[in-house]
Amino acid sequence: MKTLVSYTELIENALSDFNLPQQPAQLYDPLRYFLTLGGKRMRPILTLLATEAFGKNAKDGIHAALAVELFHNFSLIHDDIMDAAPLRRGQHTVHEKWNTNIAILSGDVLLVKAYECLGKYDANIFKNLFAVFNQTAIEVCEGQQYDMDFEQRNDVSEEDYIEMIRLKTSVLLGCALELGAIIGGADLSEAQKIYRFGEQLGLAFQIQDDLLDLFGTEAQVGKQIGGDVLANKKTLLSIAAKRLASPEQRLTLKEIEQVKNDTDKIARTQKIYQELGAKSYCETKMNNFHQEALQALDLIESKHSKAAFYDLAEFLLNRAH
Amino acid sequence: MKTLVSYTELIENALSDFNLPQQPAQLYDPLRYFLTLGGKRMRPILTLLATEAFGKNAKDGIHAALAVELFHNFSLIHDDIMDAAPLRRGQHTVHEKWNTNIAILSGDVLLVKAYECLGKYDANIFKNLFAVFNQTAIEVCEGQQYDMDFEQRNDVSEEDYIEMIRLKTSVLLGCALELGAIIGGADLSEAQKIYRFGEQLGLAFQIQDDLLDLFGTEAQVGKQIGGDVLANKKTLLSIAAKRLASPEQRLTLKEIEQVKNDTDKIARTQKIYQELGAKSYCETKMNNFHQEALQALDLIESKHSKAAFYDLAEFLLNRAH
Repeated sequence: MKTLVSYTELIENALSDFNLPQQPAQLYDPLRYFLTLGGKRMRPILTLLATEAFGKNAKDGIHAALAVELFHNFSLIHDDIMDAAPLRRGQHTVHEKWNTNIAILSGDVLLVKAYECLGKYDANIFKNLFAVFNQTAIEVCEGQQYDMDFEQRNDVSEEDYIEMIRLKTSVLLGCALELGAIIGGADLSEAQKIYRFGEQLGLAFQIQDDLLDLFGTEAQVGKQIGGDVLANKKTLLSIAAKRLASPEQRLTLKEIEQVKNDTDKIARTQKIYQELGAKSYCETKMNNFHQEALQALDLIESKHSKAAFYDLAEFLLNRAH
Repeated sequence: MKTLVSYTELIENALSDFNLPQQPAQLYDPLRYFLTLGGKRMRPILTLLATEAFGKNAKDGIHAALAVELFHNFSLIHDDIMDAAPLRRGQHTVHEKWNTNIAILSGDVLLVKAYECLGKYDANIFKNLFAVFNQTAIEVCEGQQYDMDFEQRNDVSEEDYIEMIRLKTSVLLGCALELGAIIGGADLSEAQKIYRFGEQLGLAFQIQDDLLDLFGTEAQVGKQIGGDVLANKKTLLSIAAKRLASPEQRLTLKEIEQVKNDTDKIARTQKIYQELGAKSYCETKMNNFHQEALQALDLIESKHSKAAFYDLAEFLLNRAH
């Protein structure tokens, strides 16, 4: 099993070798720009990891890894338009640096390019790869739509929220792993187990993200604490807090939403979320998804080298400690 | 060989049976709406026609026909955003009826749904279908980008313009036919010939469109004459006119662009385009592409029933007479 660094290197090299046409420049320049903004390349790493764990050389997974990374970047470019986000990884988003039309169209062609990468596999496994990838692509779009819908709604349940983050973010982690497993030669049932591992781990990871955003340190999250609270964003924490609150406490929650002083608003939210048990509720939820992920892993035949996946789960969910 | 009406019926039925999920409603309602706005369904008809001409039942081509039609509608939804078009087929565009974010995302998922339709074919032909479809999808995006670029440029050559319309519109006609041919069992070289037939016919058709827009009758085109001229749109006519004009005549062309009275502007443009020979130049170009299309058809082995394609070429290019 290779180290994470060597997987990242494989991916970065493949991305630099990825030959986007020179013309039309307004279509492909934004992609060249966006693909070099970096990021952890977590999803393609998962694909390579699974390719190797299930018995092939990591390099054999590189086209699928690229497909997943390109798809992810397509969805970021379009999400950034929808969220009117000016920055991504500290740099201008495509619609900011160019314009919305260019961001729409270059996103479109990037999605098609993702399919093109997947099309590099032999016909005998291509259809299976395609089926997983396509279903995931649909679900990610659905997740983004639910996310937009939820901004307008005040009755979002925990179940709704978890289903939204499952679609919007977790399924792509499952997909990344399953593609690798299929390329590695896993049979269908093993491939589905590693998918479930990724999906459940993704849910745990996302809830951890919500928790760290309010209860972490700047060093842990690499940005200011309390961003979600300041933006009055719906998270599992805020939804759970509302459910756990008495009618009186609900009024307090509403009051805190209106607080103008940032430090004050964050401190008061931290305090009431702890009092209400929303924090510990989310921690339990996170641990449950973590356990679900590990159970899916336990069910995979031990002839496959699963150690890297256990390490990964530990690594990803260790930010909170 | 079935009649065009019966092909249309097959397609309309398949579109009504096409089960888009109910939720999220904001994602799928716009697609249900847009797919019932109608249109001639020319592209999916081509697929069914080719499926049958090359030896299979038209019904066997239905999933590919749907893939082509869904792809076409995806590109219309996104193009309408980019063109800020309020209406499509006399009805509100998706971004007008809902909003831009919803039009982006529902377009995205429609593209994925198009791939899903294509994925219904057996692995042995699926890879070939996929390769043609994917390449075409990339080219259509490139064509749309060139179209947007050309609006900002004053040095667009006839060659540039023709390459733009080839990418933006003609390749999808070629693709629609080639998919049908592959499903019908054509070998690679026959499939490529029918692709070329569609591509060249598409070029002839688009140039005819430009000609009719200025020199046709309202009955022929189903809308007011002179729309391109009033919008100062670049067409093969306007580009050829500029090239054929003397320095003095170029000043006249510029002068006409500024004319405020619509009837006057159209009449003066018609007159000068005829004087410059731009009209007859475009007619010759159109006829050349038409002949190229027929020659591609001539090269296809006569064991295949090509009559429908000759009829089609006649039918499509008969609007001008």
